Amino acid sequence: MRTVIPFDATDPKTRLSPVLDADERATVASLLLQDVIDAVQGAGLEPTVIATEPVDLEVPVRVDPRPLTPLIGEEIERATPLAVVMADLALLERPQVSRLVETDGDVVIAPGLGGGTNALVVRDPTFDVDYHGTSFVDHLAIARERDLTTAVVDSFRLAVDVDEPADLLEVLVHGTGRTVEWLEEAGFEIQTDGGRPRVTRDVES
Amino acid sequence: MRTVIPFDATDPKTRLSPVLDADERATVASLLLQDVIDAVQGAGLEPTVIATEPVDLEVPVRVDPRPLTPLIGEEIERATPLAVVMADLALLERPQVSRLVETDGDVVIAPGLGGGTNALVVRDPTFDVDYHGTSFVDHLAIARERDLTTAVVDSFRLAVDVDEPADLLEVLVHGTGRTVEWLEEAGFEIQTDGGRPRVTRDVES
Repeated sequence: MRTVIPFDATDPKTRLSPVLDADERATVASLLLQDVIDAVQGAGLEPTVIATEPVDLEVPVRVDPRPLTPLIGEEIERATPLAVVMADLALLERPQVSRLVETDGDVVIAPGLGGGTNALVVRDPTFDVDYHGTSFVDHLAIARERDLTTAVVDSFRLAVDVDEPADLLEVLVHGTGRTVEWLEEAGFEIQTDGGRPRVTRDVES
Repeated sequence: MRTVIPFDATDPKTRLSPVLDADERATVASLLLQDVIDAVQGAGLEPTVIATEPVDLEVPVRVDPRPLTPLIGEEIERATPLAVVMADLALLERPQVSRLVETDGDVVIAPGLGGGTNALVVRDPTFDVDYHGTSFVDHLAIARERDLTTAVVDSFRLAVDVDEPADLLEVLVHGTGRTVEWLEEAGFEIQTDGGRPRVTRDVES
């Protein structure tokens, strides 16, 4: 299945600014992208990355600075079936990608935390996307309006995206890829002394 | 499978204090519990609620004020297989309960956001629990130490528990039970005007 991974290469992951400087955020964004590419390739797919500016990768890259909604809308018009996987799914592994593309439905949605759409399979070109706001709800509504069948993939690993410092806890607990390795080397660790786990950074390490 | 649902009936859900008063928190805790009972019963199981103080329910209730770790430890000693499902899984539905109990393994764990263990199936009495801190990691480690086979259930609906105001967003987006109905009647709604969805409460409604 044709698979695209949209990637914001321009000042990425600004909401991680409290714990990572600009260079570090660029590094983490690249590692997250590479983890997602690994998972997608592991499931036997050949992804194309659509990046806001040129990036150096071993998979095909197309540069397109437009926002997600027109970008993916045009991809759907170009050809279906199409899989769209966000670039910051730190916990994504091969089995979840397989579940996604093997689930039947004109439109298959994997929700993200916070009302978002973390991955999507579109098999009918009359579908359109709207990534603003609670896109999960909106995508189901758009599909319903157009008489398309839908399915939801219920996966924790597909639901976690890395936007805020608190999300790093999930990466430290469940991650197995390059991102968690970098975070641990950069001194991030889990503290549980107060009972509820939280992430701290040991700047000495 | 014998199934227990531990329930904190004593000043529950204190971290929701910023948006709910004490009576409302007690109501929401009860509705969450009832949603979980519905899901468990829907999967053909007959749960027992272990509550910190007496509660009025249509399923068997045992009162035991002890913390989770000794409580569930004793349940495992009493008899396995045993399923343990947290009482605040607002998005839980029948299919996830079925997936949980149908997954093979001496110990089957459904992680919660934040490093926790939201549901557990224990088929070997040599396992023991430790609900403090990152219990997901600890439970895998305990199982490994005791040469028990493990499996992880990858489910968004099992991973979301309701502890903090931000969790209410997930309930409003994905909930289908009594809790979301109450929240909507109480004036909670999703605002997307700023792009990122957030929960607000209209106190006039």
